[in-house]
Amino acid sequence: VRLLTFLSDFGSGSPYAAAMKAVAAGLCDALQMDISHDVRPAAIGEAAYLLWSVVPSCPEGSVHCVVVDPGVGTARAALAIAAGAQRFVGPDNGVLLPAARRAGVPAVYRLSAQPFWRTPVSATFHGRDIFAPTAARLAAGASVASVGAPADAFVDFVLPVGRRTGRALAGEVLWIDRFGNLVTSLPGDLLGEAPAGTAVLVRTPSGRLAAAAARTFGDVPAGAALVYTGSDGLVEVGINRGSAASALGAAIGTAVEIVPA
Amino acid sequence: VRLLTFLSDFGSGSPYAAAMKAVAAGLCDALQMDISHDVRPAAIGEAAYLLWSVVPSCPEGSVHCVVVDPGVGTARAALAIAAGAQRFVGPDNGVLLPAARRAGVPAVYRLSAQPFWRTPVSATFHGRDIFAPTAARLAAGASVASVGAPADAFVDFVLPVGRRTGRALAGEVLWIDRFGNLVTSLPGDLLGEAPAGTAVLVRTPSGRLAAAAARTFGDVPAGAALVYTGSDGLVEVGINRGSAASALGAAIGTAVEIVPA
Amino acid sequence: VRLLTFLSDFGSGSPYAAAMKAVAAGLCDALQMDISHDVRPAAIGEAAYLLWSVVPSCPEGSVHCVVVDPGVGTARAALAIAAGAQRFVGPDNGVLLPAARRAGVPAVYRLSAQPFWRTPVSATFHGRDIFAPTAARLAAGASVASVGAPADAFVDFVLPVGRRTGRALAGEVLWIDRFGNLVTSLPGDLLGEAPAGTAVLVRTPSGRLAAAAARTFGDVPAGAALVYTGSDGLVEVGINRGSAASALGAAIGTAVEIVPA
Repeated sequence: VRLLTFLSDFGSGSPYAAAMKAVAAGLCDALQMDISHDVRPAAIGEAAYLLWSVVPSCPEGSVHCVVVDPGVGTARAALAIAAGAQRFVGPDNGVLLPAARRAGVPAVYRLSAQPFWRTPVSATFHGRDIFAPTAARLAAGASVASVGAPADAFVDFVLPVGRRTGRALAGEVLWIDRFGNLVTSLPGDLLGEAPAGTAVLVRTPSGRLAAAAARTFGDVPAGAALVYTGSDGLVEVGINRGSAASALGAAIGTAVEIVPA
Repeated sequence: VRLLTFLSDFGSGSPYAAAMKAVAAGLCDALQMDISHDVRPAAIGEAAYLLWSVVPSCPEGSVHCVVVDPGVGTARAALAIAAGAQRFVGPDNGVLLPAARRAGVPAVYRLSAQPFWRTPVSATFHGRDIFAPTAARLAAGASVASVGAPADAFVDFVLPVGRRTGRALAGEVLWIDRFGNLVTSLPGDLLGEAPAGTAVLVRTPSGRLAAAAARTFGDVPAGAALVYTGSDGLVEVGINRGSAASALGAAIGTAVEIVPA
Repeated sequence: VRLLTFLSDFGSGSPYAAAMKAVAAGLCDALQMDISHDVRPAAIGEAAYLLWSVVPSCPEGSVHCVVVDPGVGTARAALAIAAGAQRFVGPDNGVLLPAARRAGVPAVYRLSAQPFWRTPVSATFHGRDIFAPTAARLAAGASVASVGAPADAFVDFVLPVGRRTGRALAGEVLWIDRFGNLVTSLPGDLLGEAPAGTAVLVRTPSGRLAAAAARTFGDVPAGAALVYTGSDGLVEVGINRGSAASALGAAIGTAVEIVPA
């Protein structure tokens, strides 16, 4: 059974997410999984990060249907991408590209196989009428070449990548998890040079936090801050049993700097 | 594989939704899908709208299990309805009827096949003990006639339908999506008479908004309001990259009037 | 098809829940179901209650993957438990035990079959790298003995059980549902002695509420309070069309006393 995932900014509990999944259920037997429907409205970067984060855990043959689509109904194209053993369907606004590149070398197609679409196509809900049925066809075995034509051009998007600048690591917040841990754009190997226990200072425009380099939360006392390489391979900033986001006044996109203490 | 949907006011993350789905999983191999568990408590009209909205996207053979049931444990009956190629299970409070009529001509049965129920039946959780196992039996191939007897009478409910009154379109808000767009009770063909770009005024008891008739969000600048026919075929009121609900102080049930500007 | 459930404090919409389910989807064909990902951070008691509540509704062969794991990355062990016809996978912090004992006699194993794990194992995400793949192997038919060795010792946890003290029933709040009903730790048979309509007084440290013993909500007028045996077999306190939690200032863990009025 293939995995078919859905990712949108529709809001959980909306009839839109249900309608997409219902359409797909009529067209393929895939195991359906919601990544999230609570991406902030039109937040392409946030959705791109979430998909990028999940893709390495997905089995071969997975198909991902993404609808964060502020340009719905305009002339923006719709894409299907094959990359490695996974496929991606969504609007041509860059949201698919970071995850596709993580899965392999992207072959980008522009959707044109209208026989696969629901008709009439709603001007405001391509998720139900174009993306979901196309994704379901792919999950049922169709090739990306059968749903579109190679794209001459498409909107690209790359996740920000933090870097070392002198003694400082300078990045930004890609995501904040439920516990208030900050997932930063800093590759974990930048941190790898600091032995566990090394004291560092984490700075955002609105806060500063003394932290220790660590491997996991239990390495520091409750209430203490730590920087560590998270499960995505990125530097994260957390407080054991607390919220680094609150302490640092951080949101998605906030600049983060880590310097020796 | 058949589609089996669940719709309730239990709250996502409640053990009640999980218990219903677990019971059904033991009785059928259907693909399970949550429409929503976040309907406002006891909001029969909201649940009826959501189901009505999703039904046209559902494949033949779909079964819908709805538990918005303020009368649980009282003498209110439990229903199974066959309509078109879909079936519906839930309390006899009208919540199933708008969707059933959208799927076809409803044949309404009153649940009586106690051998299909879990015993003892909880006085407060018919969802787990009556509705879910009955819906699962239907998804496994049982007929509605096998789970009950034709209902002599049942509680009916119709979604409100707005209409033209002189130069005004007068309806109400059926649902507000995550972006703050208002789905109104006005059939889209009422709007069809206005050419794109036509200036209109949208009024609620607590606000007014100058808007343009449009086809989709990208047809107006960011921050501008539009009225358009949404994916349900109903007139919607939105603000591109903004919230019409906030601008108009609107909630589900709020009266909405659209007049020429 | 086997049922594979997930329960965590990751927050719905997090990539962590999706990653766990994606890993499992690559290893088994189970029907996947979320119990909740919105358990309060590190709230082992809340998660233990939710799993305990759902287990009796689950079919034979069900596997439960629980990740409420403040000790992730430390030396705490990981467990697989077989009990009755169900299996449980999660951290060795007690969260699995109440549900396992409700399912049968727990046989507790300590996870050691590293070939079943994803490598490298993240120090902060055993859910993805240890628990999910192990649970998926069990759902695919592996035995608990194949994923670990019998545990010499493990962290136990029991849900609190309220009791009668003189004329009072004294317990605590195990869970508050979406309607504001309090699920207490009092076994329902303690209430069984009170005929329907009996007037009682419900007390918490911050409130008091005059209520009537009843069978279901419809037995009392809108706005009136009731105590009743809920669908878990526990005494619950509710207000018909209102919130007992608000009226009593109650949260999970709040002490509750029920006395004759």
